[in-house]
Amino acid sequence: MPLQDEHQIVSVDDHLIEHPRVWQDRLPDRFKERGPRIVEVGGNHVWHYDGVQYPTIGLNAVAGKDPKDWGMDPVRYEDMIPGCYDAKARIADMDIDGVQAALCFPSFPGFAGARTFFHAKDKELAYLCVQAWNDFNIDEWCATAPERLIPLAILPVWDIDLCVRELERVAAKGARTISFPDSPVPLGLPSFHTDHWDPLWQVCSDAEIPVSLHFGSGSFVPGFSNAEDIPHMVSTVLFANNLQWSTVDLLFSGKLQQFPNLQISLAEGGIGWIPYLLERADFVWERHRWYQKVDQNMYPSELFRKHFWGCFIDDVHGLENRHKIGIDRITLEIDYPHSDSNWPNSRKRASEVLANVPDDEVSMIVETNARTMLRFPRTS
Amino acid sequence: MPLQDEHQIVSVDDHLIEHPRVWQDRLPDRFKERGPRIVEVGGNHVWHYDGVQYPTIGLNAVAGKDPKDWGMDPVRYEDMIPGCYDAKARIADMDIDGVQAALCFPSFPGFAGARTFFHAKDKELAYLCVQAWNDFNIDEWCATAPERLIPLAILPVWDIDLCVRELERVAAKGARTISFPDSPVPLGLPSFHTDHWDPLWQVCSDAEIPVSLHFGSGSFVPGFSNAEDIPHMVSTVLFANNLQWSTVDLLFSGKLQQFPNLQISLAEGGIGWIPYLLERADFVWERHRWYQKVDQNMYPSELFRKHFWGCFIDDVHGLENRHKIGIDRITLEIDYPHSDSNWPNSRKRASEVLANVPDDEVSMIVETNARTMLRFPRTS
Repeated sequence: MPLQDEHQIVSVDDHLIEHPRVWQDRLPDRFKERGPRIVEVGGNHVWHYDGVQYPTIGLNAVAGKDPKDWGMDPVRYEDMIPGCYDAKARIADMDIDGVQAALCFPSFPGFAGARTFFHAKDKELAYLCVQAWNDFNIDEWCATAPERLIPLAILPVWDIDLCVRELERVAAKGARTISFPDSPVPLGLPSFHTDHWDPLWQVCSDAEIPVSLHFGSGSFVPGFSNAEDIPHMVSTVLFANNLQWSTVDLLFSGKLQQFPNLQISLAEGGIGWIPYLLERADFVWERHRWYQKVDQNMYPSELFRKHFWGCFIDDVHGLENRHKIGIDRITLEIDYPHSDSNWPNSRKRASEVLANVPDDEVSMIVETNARTMLRFPRTS
Repeated sequence: MPLQDEHQIVSVDDHLIEHPRVWQDRLPDRFKERGPRIVEVGGNHVWHYDGVQYPTIGLNAVAGKDPKDWGMDPVRYEDMIPGCYDAKARIADMDIDGVQAALCFPSFPGFAGARTFFHAKDKELAYLCVQAWNDFNIDEWCATAPERLIPLAILPVWDIDLCVRELERVAAKGARTISFPDSPVPLGLPSFHTDHWDPLWQVCSDAEIPVSLHFGSGSFVPGFSNAEDIPHMVSTVLFANNLQWSTVDLLFSGKLQQFPNLQISLAEGGIGWIPYLLERADFVWERHRWYQKVDQNMYPSELFRKHFWGCFIDDVHGLENRHKIGIDRITLEIDYPHSDSNWPNSRKRASEVLANVPDDEVSMIVETNARTMLRFPRTS
């Protein structure tokens, strides 16, 4: 018996589109004019931030549209269904979709806050913008329905001291995870192999805050040919490569031994590739560990099953091989309102792909693993 | 009953180390001094080519060594077992290993000839060097044992007209496949999405020459962190990513529809990732094809099973999922003398990983698929 009525779906990867007043309601007066605000340009809504215009208000916000009509990002808020940017409407859309709880990543700031604010010149303003997003998400968006929306925070990744300070601040007010760049390297920041991030990993470990790595949050686009004249489904198909690279970096970084409580959630990476990658990692480790500076005792696959969580939308192959991944390490994502999402049929589709999975495993996959990882217990 | 005595192993990926006289025996006199030759430098053998020294004579040629002693490339020919560079000794090593036939990629030129000769300034000399390698491989190396060593050719990839001319030349003298860069893009050459390579694909199609794409032959190293101070097993684990990118590029390039006889062999990429990637490609194609310039009728997975061949060394997960890949599309590789190889236990290991595979499927995987792809029929 797969997916039962008593199973609550807890999604570890959804997205929200910031409404026009997210920053205007929170920035000090002296920064309001330069902070992110929506302006009308040629009939379109565009973000205006510190002298720069950002044409996309809701990247890939296609929920509710026929795939045959895709291809353009929305240009006005009215082009989107309200659940994209209105928390009450979102809850209603989650009800339609049969989803109990959702973890929502940012849009305008980039999935990990590493787009607009990271690249902004005025870092005082940028830091305030990061904090404003976190306050919006925790105090406004998630507070609308505390049992349904799971607080996530972004960090001022350009400054490790500020990262630590902001994480301590948001952890105290209930953040359950941080969204961190899937790799800092393409941003010009130190890699996972360096000591640079140690103070952050220490706070994550101490506060039991898992690190969510969303593909693309480090700005890297996979594929040999990123020219504009090739079908962009090439990179869409290859999304998981980012998180494969992140995983292997972390597995051989020594950081998981240094911070035994550090937990990593691979957001929107799928799971079907995990059995191959772990087998390959073990094979290489067995042969090559002798002369390299890596853990000599623990198989990479063991390390993975202690520290990583994968999620999927529609991954039949991954589910068939779920025991190679670790049944206690698989979670579900809904990805509303993006194009990978099955909304408003997410529960129906989950039920189909879980048709041959035993009841207790379904419960873990759709609900309890995510609740454990995010310390977001069931209350009803 | 897995792997029987009557099953001959035909490997689609091995490597040879060029002996010191490969080019000196073949270049015109006026080029001999500048052409590749071995010199002694500080007790090491190094290649000297057109004013440049290349310190590595046998990249990763570790066959016969204990993994605990790995970590250094050989510095003299005596550091390698003779089967690396001597065809008769190679046949003896294949006998020890239980392998009937092998397809050998170059070393000094790069896997697809796209290292030394591609980057050389004097393109007249470089073209002669490519031809000399092909003549060496076909007339000397493979001619030593025509039923055991399968002719492969490299091309002067910097010039499409010369590529066509050289392919026609080597096809006439028995080349069974070409080794082509896994992507031309990192070399600064036009991508698989362009028309640039059409004349080459036309000859490959007409002459029934499959294109072997060996990971890394386009010089791209996968991974976010390629700094020298990180364990290089990070990129070793991720090798397959190159060929995943090549595959997805080709699947959405339109070239497979344009050249319905074009066949692609993914060399040293493993197979365990294929079921996930095809499921993902189909999922994305189903949703996103409407507004992109791609085939509207054929699933990427269908296209894959008509045009691609995968190979593996030790891929338990891939074999368990072999029917999702296509049982008629899987081949075996030995990878002698590199570190992934199981030599001298390749047959023993193949027998173990194929233990639960039916006899007729084993026959296809270890032998007949490769013979079909390479037009290399059994003669004894």
